[in-house]
Amino acid sequence: MAELVRVAVDAMGGDNAPTEIIKGVVEAVHADERVKVFLIGQEDVVKKELAAYSYPAERIEVVHASEVIETGEPPVNAIRGKKDSSIVKGLGLVKNGECDAFVSAGSTGAVLVGGQVLVGRAKGVERPPLAPLIPTENGCSLLIDCGANVDARPSQLVQFARMGSIYMENVMGVKNPTVAIVNIGVEEEKGNALVKETYPMLKECKDINFIGSIEARDIPAGKADVVVCEAFVGNVILKLYEGVGATLIKKVKGGMMTNLRSKIGALLVKPALKQTLKAFDLEEYGGAPLLGLKGLVVKTHGSSKSVEIKNTILQCITFQEQDVVGKITASIAAAKEEG
Amino acid sequence: MAELVRVAVDAMGGDNAPTEIIKGVVEAVHADERVKVFLIGQEDVVKKELAAYSYPAERIEVVHASEVIETGEPPVNAIRGKKDSSIVKGLGLVKNGECDAFVSAGSTGAVLVGGQVLVGRAKGVERPPLAPLIPTENGCSLLIDCGANVDARPSQLVQFARMGSIYMENVMGVKNPTVAIVNIGVEEEKGNALVKETYPMLKECKDINFIGSIEARDIPAGKADVVVCEAFVGNVILKLYEGVGATLIKKVKGGMMTNLRSKIGALLVKPALKQTLKAFDLEEYGGAPLLGLKGLVVKTHGSSKSVEIKNTILQCITFQEQDVVGKITASIAAAKEEG
Repeated sequence: MAELVRVAVDAMGGDNAPTEIIKGVVEAVHADERVKVFLIGQEDVVKKELAAYSYPAERIEVVHASEVIETGEPPVNAIRGKKDSSIVKGLGLVKNGECDAFVSAGSTGAVLVGGQVLVGRAKGVERPPLAPLIPTENGCSLLIDCGANVDARPSQLVQFARMGSIYMENVMGVKNPTVAIVNIGVEEEKGNALVKETYPMLKECKDINFIGSIEARDIPAGKADVVVCEAFVGNVILKLYEGVGATLIKKVKGGMMTNLRSKIGALLVKPALKQTLKAFDLEEYGGAPLLGLKGLVVKTHGSSKSVEIKNTILQCITFQEQDVVGKITASIAAAKEEG
Repeated sequence: MAELVRVAVDAMGGDNAPTEIIKGVVEAVHADERVKVFLIGQEDVVKKELAAYSYPAERIEVVHASEVIETGEPPVNAIRGKKDSSIVKGLGLVKNGECDAFVSAGSTGAVLVGGQVLVGRAKGVERPPLAPLIPTENGCSLLIDCGANVDARPSQLVQFARMGSIYMENVMGVKNPTVAIVNIGVEEEKGNALVKETYPMLKECKDINFIGSIEARDIPAGKADVVVCEAFVGNVILKLYEGVGATLIKKVKGGMMTNLRSKIGALLVKPALKQTLKAFDLEEYGGAPLLGLKGLVVKTHGSSKSVEIKNTILQCITFQEQDVVGKITASIAAAKEEG
């Protein structure tokens, strides 16, 4: 039997911790026998929750961490100050090679800062991007970067394009994924200073399938598999996706409750509609990887339920088995040699 | 009787020109007797369309323009080269004081460039922003700037905040409108270099109701009346609004067609739903003003139907009667004196 993929999971992070996290972990080990989970958190709490399930004992190990980093805490202070927190301990396991990946629904800031400081960047990577999958008309695209470091340089965006391509190809199974840069028009001369400088550099990359600029209206239509942008813009895109989605769904529900006729219609339509809209839910696609580190770090939504935790753990297996870290490092080294 | 507000309308611009444009113009002069429209375009075409309607002849005047600027033409060349186009002629009427406003559904680039070059900036204005109204949960907000000039300076964003406030208060009737800057978090220390520099400057402005940062997810919820951002980000927000909306509506429709039960429900739900979703349609809110010029220039959607043209012309009346240009100039002069 091949070696198990070892995934450290933060049992204490997110709105639904530890209950949903632990449920998701149990579901993951049942769903795939190639994984072992290290469940990090306050031992008594975690063990009590785990006792409710039956699972292969050798594939879930509880690691005690006495402290919890709260969402509101300044990330740098939290990482420095709380050495016995689930986030610091989990990242430490990846750093020292005891685990291959770390998954957390906790403080985004702490996971981003901790990932860079504790796990460290892979050789040659200038800046590790946070890259969530976003739903589109026919599937999903990778939005890269939505992280905490804004005002990126062109060379960093080019690395994002390479890392995103490798992720989509190897983890999501998209052959020769299309890559586009977010812009305010499709013509090559359009854009702000950053995009204008980055565009010709992307055009030169022979190892990615660059298709040019993408306007924001074409992102939900799924016109590119990898959507490259600077983190400020990425953050706006990600959060507006949520916001417009939530408001529209509320409007649709309100519209259905207008009169008796529409209320009866709503009852008939509801089950089919629910199923369809599920495919457009950001949380269905698992967590966002922080790419370009020496190991894998994944941030899931603060509101993660068990299904997102399970899906994220299963993605970690593919990530590890496809050696994405190795492929990213090789691709960046090759680009350096060429350039 | 008070003087008429004189609005020049581009009869030749947009996907539905001239039919829908001319229909909207006729509707506008019937709806409000304070307006006179100068309909600019190829005389024979325009007059033939007009012949289908009855209207007060003294309030619609046809102005001949032999040329048409197409959407794909490079804006600067088009404005320079096509002196007898409907856009150049219409802007000329505003420039020389024969009209108070110009409305066009034609080439956005040509309208933006022409507005700045031909009509000219009002005294003290650094950069004229394009400011569309976007639908929110309970009404609409002004998104300022979505124009063609990216990479703005902090002092420009501060002027956008002032101009947007004046517009929302005087044209849309929002008392003491709230102003927020688009950011990646609500804490004051968050943001890119531009936002970090602009934030304290906005906080100092005593003449606007600045409420701090707004995250993109809160824009559709309507948490601010005036949403300030640099044009690249504004363009992404505007187009993603369209894109997510279109994709979700398609998903909802698809979901309703899943099976017989849901199809019957869809029939019952449809009329009420259509009515509700209309309120979330970008085109219901009329055109986007290019603020900070010596006169009013409004860009309506390329796909404008008569209702958008009519609503836009009616907004021009309020804009003129409230002396928005005068108020903007005064506000910017006062700010200069203080600073």
